Amino acid sequence: MEINPLSLSWKSRYKILTGAVVPRPVGWISTVNVAGQPNLAPFSFFNVVCATPPTLLFCPMTRSTDGSTKDTLNNIRATREFVVNIVTEPLAEAMTHTSVEAPQQVNEFEIAGLEAAPSAVVSPPRVAASPIHFECRLERIVEISNLPGGGNIVIGTVVHMHIDERVLLGEDKINLSALEAIGRLAGSAYTRTTDIFEIVRPKSQIPPRK
Amino acid sequence: MEINPLSLSWKSRYKILTGAVVPRPVGWISTVNVAGQPNLAPFSFFNVVCATPPTLLFCPMTRSTDGSTKDTLNNIRATREFVVNIVTEPLAEAMTHTSVEAPQQVNEFEIAGLEAAPSAVVSPPRVAASPIHFECRLERIVEISNLPGGGNIVIGTVVHMHIDERVLLGEDKINLSALEAIGRLAGSAYTRTTDIFEIVRPKSQIPPRK
Repeated sequence: MEINPLSLSWKSRYKILTGAVVPRPVGWISTVNVAGQPNLAPFSFFNVVCATPPTLLFCPMTRSTDGSTKDTLNNIRATREFVVNIVTEPLAEAMTHTSVEAPQQVNEFEIAGLEAAPSAVVSPPRVAASPIHFECRLERIVEISNLPGGGNIVIGTVVHMHIDERVLLGEDKINLSALEAIGRLAGSAYTRTTDIFEIVRPKSQIPPRK
Repeated sequence: MEINPLSLSWKSRYKILTGAVVPRPVGWISTVNVAGQPNLAPFSFFNVVCATPPTLLFCPMTRSTDGSTKDTLNNIRATREFVVNIVTEPLAEAMTHTSVEAPQQVNEFEIAGLEAAPSAVVSPPRVAASPIHFECRLERIVEISNLPGGGNIVIGTVVHMHIDERVLLGEDKINLSALEAIGRLAGSAYTRTTDIFEIVRPKSQIPPRK
């Protein structure tokens, strides 16, 4: 099937893109507004950028209800800080409770019954039950579109990491089976990271340049 | 464990970030250089940005061998086009053969024994065996760092989609079990998207604004 994406509604484009680009990691983003009120919401348009400086990004779309920007983005624009909390299978149900379109004054930590823990170097609190937190300072926001179905790219530099020793092997290896990470699929579906296979990557065919 | 990321080597930061941000979708990116020679390489720092305009991004890191930029990035800078081929489990082995650090003149389609198919509106060829292809025009490149462990963000607008009818239900729903997508974990590990659970998202608590 050959498709010109301009011939589709934005919701159909969204369904195709989110059905094809799977499984997606989930970044559970905590922020505060200028008054210090916390917000928490999950984003699966989320990934690593690079290790130097340690950089993550996520892409909040405009609100599907009315095309306005989400509280997470508004808070980061105002305070330039956020925390990425890693979602595990035991936290999946609570995570979905923080994904509702809630009024700005709602504290999603309370809605979902989650304990907040203070961060080390940024203002937004962490999800205490999450085993890994990356405290981030805003690097920049790339605006793509504010039309329905549009979004922005939020790029952050990791300034502090918290890693529960139960998911850490040695000084820098994450124990995948202890982490119990989940991946976002389409619709209401998530995948566990339990059905694993290994492929040893072939050796480089290019010698290091001098 | 409390970690100041500046106290770690870039390889340790890389191991922590790629171990924590899982599972990652795999974008298999085909490009051509100005002479029309094709290149193909997988990237798991890859995701959707938004649906209007339909936008994808991926983040090529600098080469681990010598800190230079990868052929994929060089080709996109020169030609402003790329194709995202979706990787399925039957293609996983071939995909890893295209991940080698190969000299610029090497055609990874040939290394991996993959048939190339012409694209509809861009110059880079598609991986014929992949069931979904997104032809993209460069929107912009965001430069983060060219230091060891650094990288760039390549943002593309989807200008044409090819979807094999075997993975499509109706006009816009991707059949996950037919797709057999795989997710990137750390080291040599990948996860299948077979161990699925569903969580129905709670209803919105905010009425649409008028």
